[in-house]
Amino acid sequence: MRKVAIVGVGQTPVREHWQNNLRDLAVTALRDAMDDAGVETLDSVYVGNMLSGALSDQENLGSLIVDYAGLDGVEGLKVEAACGSGAAAMRMAVNAVSSGLMNIVGVVGVEKLTEYSGKFSTGSLATAADADYEITTGLSFVGINALLMRRYLYQYSYDKKDFAIFPINAHFNASHNKIAMFRSPITAEQYAQAKYIADPVNLLDSSPIADGAAAVVVVAQENISKYEGKPVSILACEVGTDTVALDNREDPLWLKGVERSAKKAYQISCLKPKDIDFFEPHDAFSIITALSLEASGFCEKGEALKFAEQKGIGIHGGLPLTTCGGLKGRGHPVGATGCYQIVEAVSQLRGAVADAIKVSRCKIGMTQNIGGSGAVVITTILESIGRR
Amino acid sequence: MRKVAIVGVGQTPVREHWQNNLRDLAVTALRDAMDDAGVETLDSVYVGNMLSGALSDQENLGSLIVDYAGLDGVEGLKVEAACGSGAAAMRMAVNAVSSGLMNIVGVVGVEKLTEYSGKFSTGSLATAADADYEITTGLSFVGINALLMRRYLYQYSYDKKDFAIFPINAHFNASHNKIAMFRSPITAEQYAQAKYIADPVNLLDSSPIADGAAAVVVVAQENISKYEGKPVSILACEVGTDTVALDNREDPLWLKGVERSAKKAYQISCLKPKDIDFFEPHDAFSIITALSLEASGFCEKGEALKFAEQKGIGIHGGLPLTTCGGLKGRGHPVGATGCYQIVEAVSQLRGAVADAIKVSRCKIGMTQNIGGSGAVVITTILESIGRR
Repeated sequence: MRKVAIVGVGQTPVREHWQNNLRDLAVTALRDAMDDAGVETLDSVYVGNMLSGALSDQENLGSLIVDYAGLDGVEGLKVEAACGSGAAAMRMAVNAVSSGLMNIVGVVGVEKLTEYSGKFSTGSLATAADADYEITTGLSFVGINALLMRRYLYQYSYDKKDFAIFPINAHFNASHNKIAMFRSPITAEQYAQAKYIADPVNLLDSSPIADGAAAVVVVAQENISKYEGKPVSILACEVGTDTVALDNREDPLWLKGVERSAKKAYQISCLKPKDIDFFEPHDAFSIITALSLEASGFCEKGEALKFAEQKGIGIHGGLPLTTCGGLKGRGHPVGATGCYQIVEAVSQLRGAVADAIKVSRCKIGMTQNIGGSGAVVITTILESIGRR
Repeated sequence: MRKVAIVGVGQTPVREHWQNNLRDLAVTALRDAMDDAGVETLDSVYVGNMLSGALSDQENLGSLIVDYAGLDGVEGLKVEAACGSGAAAMRMAVNAVSSGLMNIVGVVGVEKLTEYSGKFSTGSLATAADADYEITTGLSFVGINALLMRRYLYQYSYDKKDFAIFPINAHFNASHNKIAMFRSPITAEQYAQAKYIADPVNLLDSSPIADGAAAVVVVAQENISKYEGKPVSILACEVGTDTVALDNREDPLWLKGVERSAKKAYQISCLKPKDIDFFEPHDAFSIITALSLEASGFCEKGEALKFAEQKGIGIHGGLPLTTCGGLKGRGHPVGATGCYQIVEAVSQLRGAVADAIKVSRCKIGMTQNIGGSGAVVITTILESIGRR
């Protein structure tokens, strides 16, 4: 297997993009990544997207995007793993390049959640859960996360306000990321007073739906000298799964999919949690950040909130989290999110982020993209080249 | 790159499955393929599906299916390429195994078009076309094919009745395939009298929507002795694309995506069209069979109907087509179709089909799965092992 690296990244602002359709967003991000890499064509493009069919009446997104990107005839396929679609597409690209089958593959995650085509985004997002056994009971996706958060507060005797640390950190970091959706820091008091979406999940526990696209160019590491973009090595991009429905899990507070994906990624990269310099968790809801820290091996079960407080999750802390704002601050265009996380980790490892959110002397970053409530998890470990 | 082979196949009947949901169908086909191969687990499962989100309110299909198949924790991702989704998932499996990254991968194509969740299947199927530039004009997917057929009849001065050869052959072959949706042969007279769906496309030019699932188990050829199922080698599984919208093509009667995909497949397998013993085209509409024969290099442009007549497309003809009924006779559960084609080609190469549809002394079969009106095409070439 060949080592693989990223040599180009691109991303659109995360916004309600009323002036740009799905293909505009995807092509903008993809062409920016190609420009960064200094390339004019690709062997293949894998598109991460969840809801183009339901919300924009558009499937067949792979061929549509290669066509509009000016990549006439190039392979283009869409990969779907709910909110984990972006990194799932990345996984396919890493497979294709590491095998030697392809030399250069584009990955673009794109989502347009402000579209409407007979279905609203809340109902469509619920398709990440088990339609027959969860959604028919009247649960929404935020409702599922509320059940998890309620159980966590009860089982480990935390106060709701102990969760404030995650969104406060995310919003602070997003305030220094110019493509982020939210640019204002928030306070503990604002968190305490935020209105409830599904008790105990409040507005500041919930990442916002949004439109956006992010893209990377993946190549064989042996070929990086051919490309313009500063390379970052992909040490692992590994998938783990769990049941889709929460009630099928032995312990709903233990994300087995996260554990499986992270363990595979550590194993393949010969790294341990302590080697990770910063972590981009899938902070769709505050509770998921907590559960991800535990199942990824950064702390013990039930200890995530204490860990965050004691270790420090800010840029200068022991484990910086959501360094560009995360899903909460940057925004969560679902099928694009996994690609945003990877673009941000690459930018961080290149030292190409604003000074206020620059993690000093970082060499290893980890991103984790989740589909459903932990049903499918893709953990990616990235390393700056030549600085280890 | 390692050679890859199929050692297990499974399929459900193609029907309106009112008693079985999406996961039942997929798991039945996948477990049957695993039983055929004699295996209890897989390294990964790639799911081909187009419309589970729109029609069954269920995305995240990869993890759902691995869970319900009893493959706890195994990687499961969905691949979408409209009606080409089944073979697109196959492509990902071939990549993963040929690379050495995985040793055994399951592929399952599944679709349940009889579901309804606020959208009907005709509207949903139109998401395979260009939503912004084709569908907004009021075109349906069958409408697009009607434009192509009308143009073909005009440009090459054929009679509408000349197309009868394809559905007559497909229905005859389907009458000997016990999982096919339609089991009755049709006559030229019935074709001539069939009611129009979108003039000149009539009912017998159109493949039926249906529910179903088909699956295969892909392994490295060097390991085939470990498995029970009679192996069939995969010589190529290649993707070509074209514009999604017809009006962006120089010549709408030339399917460049088919040409690109087929040429790559011939090149990688070191074969020519004359080496193909039988061909499973994507006969969603009769016109697509004609255009596919031409762009795949079996005959000259505009000559497909003459070729079919002169060469013979029946089981004992020069180029047997749709040997198990094709999309027209077996039925077209869109995201599953590519997998049905491969299961049928494997069955044909194993000699495991009814005598009346057994192609004698066949060693090489080719399947072609298309998403959109030729926008994404996956050509797979299969070879029986030990009989060449």
